Amino acid sequence: MEESHKVNVLGISGSLRQGSYNTAALREAVQLAPDGMHITLADISEIPLYNEDIYAKGFPSAVECLREQIRSADALLFVTPEYNYSIPGVLKNAIDWVSRPPEQPFSGKPAALMGASPGRFGTVRAQYHLRQSMIFLDVKLLNQPEVMIGNAQNVFDQQGKLIDAVSREHIRGLLNALYQWTLLLRQR
Amino acid sequence: MEESHKVNVLGISGSLRQGSYNTAALREAVQLAPDGMHITLADISEIPLYNEDIYAKGFPSAVECLREQIRSADALLFVTPEYNYSIPGVLKNAIDWVSRPPEQPFSGKPAALMGASPGRFGTVRAQYHLRQSMIFLDVKLLNQPEVMIGNAQNVFDQQGKLIDAVSREHIRGLLNALYQWTLLLRQR
Amino acid sequence: MEESHKVNVLGISGSLRQGSYNTAALREAVQLAPDGMHITLADISEIPLYNEDIYAKGFPSAVECLREQIRSADALLFVTPEYNYSIPGVLKNAIDWVSRPPEQPFSGKPAALMGASPGRFGTVRAQYHLRQSMIFLDVKLLNQPEVMIGNAQNVFDQQGKLIDAVSREHIRGLLNALYQWTLLLRQR
Amino acid sequence: MEESHKVNVLGISGSLRQGSYNTAALREAVQLAPDGMHITLADISEIPLYNEDIYAKGFPSAVECLREQIRSADALLFVTPEYNYSIPGVLKNAIDWVSRPPEQPFSGKPAALMGASPGRFGTVRAQYHLRQSMIFLDVKLLNQPEVMIGNAQNVFDQQGKLIDAVSREHIRGLLNALYQWTLLLRQR
Repeated sequence: MEESHKVNVLGISGSLRQGSYNTAALREAVQLAPDGMHITLADISEIPLYNEDIYAKGFPSAVECLREQIRSADALLFVTPEYNYSIPGVLKNAIDWVSRPPEQPFSGKPAALMGASPGRFGTVRAQYHLRQSMIFLDVKLLNQPEVMIGNAQNVFDQQGKLIDAVSREHIRGLLNALYQWTLLLRQR
Repeated sequence: MEESHKVNVLGISGSLRQGSYNTAALREAVQLAPDGMHITLADISEIPLYNEDIYAKGFPSAVECLREQIRSADALLFVTPEYNYSIPGVLKNAIDWVSRPPEQPFSGKPAALMGASPGRFGTVRAQYHLRQSMIFLDVKLLNQPEVMIGNAQNVFDQQGKLIDAVSREHIRGLLNALYQWTLLLRQR
Repeated sequence: MEESHKVNVLGISGSLRQGSYNTAALREAVQLAPDGMHITLADISEIPLYNEDIYAKGFPSAVECLREQIRSADALLFVTPEYNYSIPGVLKNAIDWVSRPPEQPFSGKPAALMGASPGRFGTVRAQYHLRQSMIFLDVKLLNQPEVMIGNAQNVFDQQGKLIDAVSREHIRGLLNALYQWTLLLRQR
Repeated sequence: MEESHKVNVLGISGSLRQGSYNTAALREAVQLAPDGMHITLADISEIPLYNEDIYAKGFPSAVECLREQIRSADALLFVTPEYNYSIPGVLKNAIDWVSRPPEQPFSGKPAALMGASPGRFGTVRAQYHLRQSMIFLDVKLLNQPEVMIGNAQNVFDQQGKLIDAVSREHIRGLLNALYQWTLLLRQR
């Protein structure tokens, strides 16, 4: 395959829990990626609480690492739980760190968004909040499809395997759309 | 003054920076509180990143402390910066921890909201996001007045003193409204 | 029953369709209202498109009528469909008219919110948009319970009768909460 | 100029008022459009209140006309006031009509957004609500720049001429970005 058709995606899960449905969905995405797309998982567990006094002394290493991963990715895949009708503080905190000057590595990146939750709504409220942050960061987030996996305890098995064929097709559709979107936005 | 007219408020700033405009606004509020209202400052700087695996073993002490402070407060005052068109991850992370079962200490608390930022918009986007979380938590948040202090570098001096009379009146108005609202909601 | 325990509610449906699920849910609410609560239905079908040049000449009669109904109601019940991830233009247009000076009749009214839609999400996105308008209008909207009736074609029968016991209990719970909330906010 | 570099834009103002700041801003945009871009103004004043019973009989002529204009435009420019912390009912009502099947003419259109208001916030709250509807409609809305013209009574003169050079540069920047965005998304 030509280089120009390869898409490297950085996947960012908003949950730190070992058995997280969202991290499980992200691992599933790694398997479901179309030819030409390769998904790597970011790790936000070591990022400290944002404090501008610390930032003034330089980025902590976990932040610098994430910034570099974002900078070198062709596209991003956010996978977010919903806590208290919004995105997790943990995920927002990582974004807050990464977004700081000098350069802002999110800018212009094609991206896709999905989420999983035990309830009926599948992170719908969290997703629109994350989308608002992405406007500021100038992330080129896909409008559609929207993947909101509800009832997570029944669509994943105990090992975190996604056992629901419909959800799998939704993820596959999202990844295909992200692939096409990334190629479209790539300056040719 | 009768006990029934005393209102103890817990003030929560969403910024960890020493010279934070929002923490400065909160300290100003302490001075501007009406007779009968006493404002104490919470400290969220020691709260770890939320992780359900840690939660399963019990609340960290900084979280337990904040939960107890909220539980025993008559009302809450949130003072939030805006990062990336939403509330800081640091503040959301504290809320995510506090909100976990068995009991949810935010439930039913009267509350008020304000924020300060260097730009023109004064945290307007962050405030509606925080309001959405408060719906879930059943916090009785005042609709009005809304205090959105823009142009923060000019309304605070180098020592963090609020030198703008109009902003001071806005904060005073908010605190008076919170005082009345808390008495109204107090079961008599 | 004493006057002080009577609550007159104005119900406003956001749909003009004869067979509207939302209007059907509102009619169901009329039946499910607790002792002491009486619900009347507003009619927004004759309200013209908002135009400030028309407003400058005075409120159209359909608007004046709705304003008077709101003014004299003890509480409000909004029942909204979701169109294009927000509230219907028709409902927003009615609100835009009613909110105009001299006095703003929504101000301070206790209120509750529910909605029904054919999809899985039951108007969740529309409801948070309506809530944001209510902040400006200083409507005292209940946080909880939230009534979001999805899958509407199966929970209502052909005659618009709500045949789902769970949804009926949700509406009943909302009305009971609105009743208590209205009494609490009533100055005593 | 080659056909492939021409961009026809349909401009939609959310206000019906003759002296509307938003319509004035849209007329200004017509003048400020870069070479190759031509902006036409839509008229939403004759669109009736949305009612699915009317829709079932066919689109009213004013709706059919707007649908055809959108279908044949290369890009869209929304110019919205803010009423009650959201977009005007009048604008949402037009969108609700246009979005109905069989085909949905907004789908995939590049678009830009701006707004003007007398207050300090320049329609910021309305703009994020409109953006949420655009996700559903799969409109490819520019993230940046965001044009939020506050203090409108001072930046426009009595004849609706935009007399503020900074605002004019913001509009020009938005139109240039829309032009480039439209060419980028055009399948080549």
